[in-house]
Amino acid sequence: MQLKPIGRIRSPFAHSPGTPIQPCFAGGHTGEAEIFPENAEGLRDLAGFDRIWLLFWCHRASDVKLSVVPYRDTVERGIFATRAPARPNPIGLSCVRLTGIENNILHLAEVDILDGSPLLDIKPYVPDYDVYPVGRTGWIGERGLDVVAADARFEQPS
Amino acid sequence: MQLKPIGRIRSPFAHSPGTPIQPCFAGGHTGEAEIFPENAEGLRDLAGFDRIWLLFWCHRASDVKLSVVPYRDTVERGIFATRAPARPNPIGLSCVRLTGIENNILHLAEVDILDGSPLLDIKPYVPDYDVYPVGRTGWIGERGLDVVAADARFEQPS
Repeated sequence: MQLKPIGRIRSPFAHSPGTPIQPCFAGGHTGEAEIFPENAEGLRDLAGFDRIWLLFWCHRASDVKLSVVPYRDTVERGIFATRAPARPNPIGLSCVRLTGIENNILHLAEVDILDGSPLLDIKPYVPDYDVYPVGRTGWIGERGLDVVAADARFEQPS
Repeated sequence: MQLKPIGRIRSPFAHSPGTPIQPCFAGGHTGEAEIFPENAEGLRDLAGFDRIWLLFWCHRASDVKLSVVPYRDTVERGIFATRAPARPNPIGLSCVRLTGIENNILHLAEVDILDGSPLLDIKPYVPDYDVYPVGRTGWIGERGLDVVAADARFEQPS
């Protein structure tokens, strides 16, 4: 199970501190996904979608921790009950807005991804497939703090 | 960027033909995710969530194709404008229902994943992070066929 990047993210965020923790908190921030030319054929028909999932490698994530204090809490939670990047397989998942495509460049809005992140996959966002009614959202629903930007806690020292 | 499985999926689906193409079409089908003991600590607090994202390796996917005829269409589309598994990095993404946790076993419903698929990651499903209003859903919205189960087109010969 070996990954190879299909492209690279360009964003205003060189480091974690101040980076939005999710696209829903990244309103005005724009960025680009540069798709490597050998994968450009796969972008056909993508421009018809308002939003896309980006799967990317959290290349600046700190070492794996199975218990973390997430940004939105003050006590430890199991890593799989959080969206923190210090995961066994540090794959990030963000639903960003696709504002345009020029050749092999995707123009993006509501970007919460660090600059230079290797891009692994793009999937169209389809409400039939991705939107489900849920009642319980665990600790996030019960006591999620009103934090919208990251700090350095999950970033490897540079 | 080397992946290591954190567990394995158990489902009723040994082969692609007849497997639901998304959890929204997998109503009555249940399954399990067996988490390897060394990762079990990371499951703490997960039981509070009604739904979870599973990221898994499409271990039975055919070779990479940048253009495919998806299940829900009759013409070729760019692979990144589809959810088909024949992708450069064959990572599947499914939002399944979590019905219970016993030790290192997750009990799942609405499962659309092939039996034996290596599990890569689990993330809590959080509507604030994952639900967005969209207007345009490309070819899927315009002419998506009423297909709800896979056939053999993206499965490697066994």
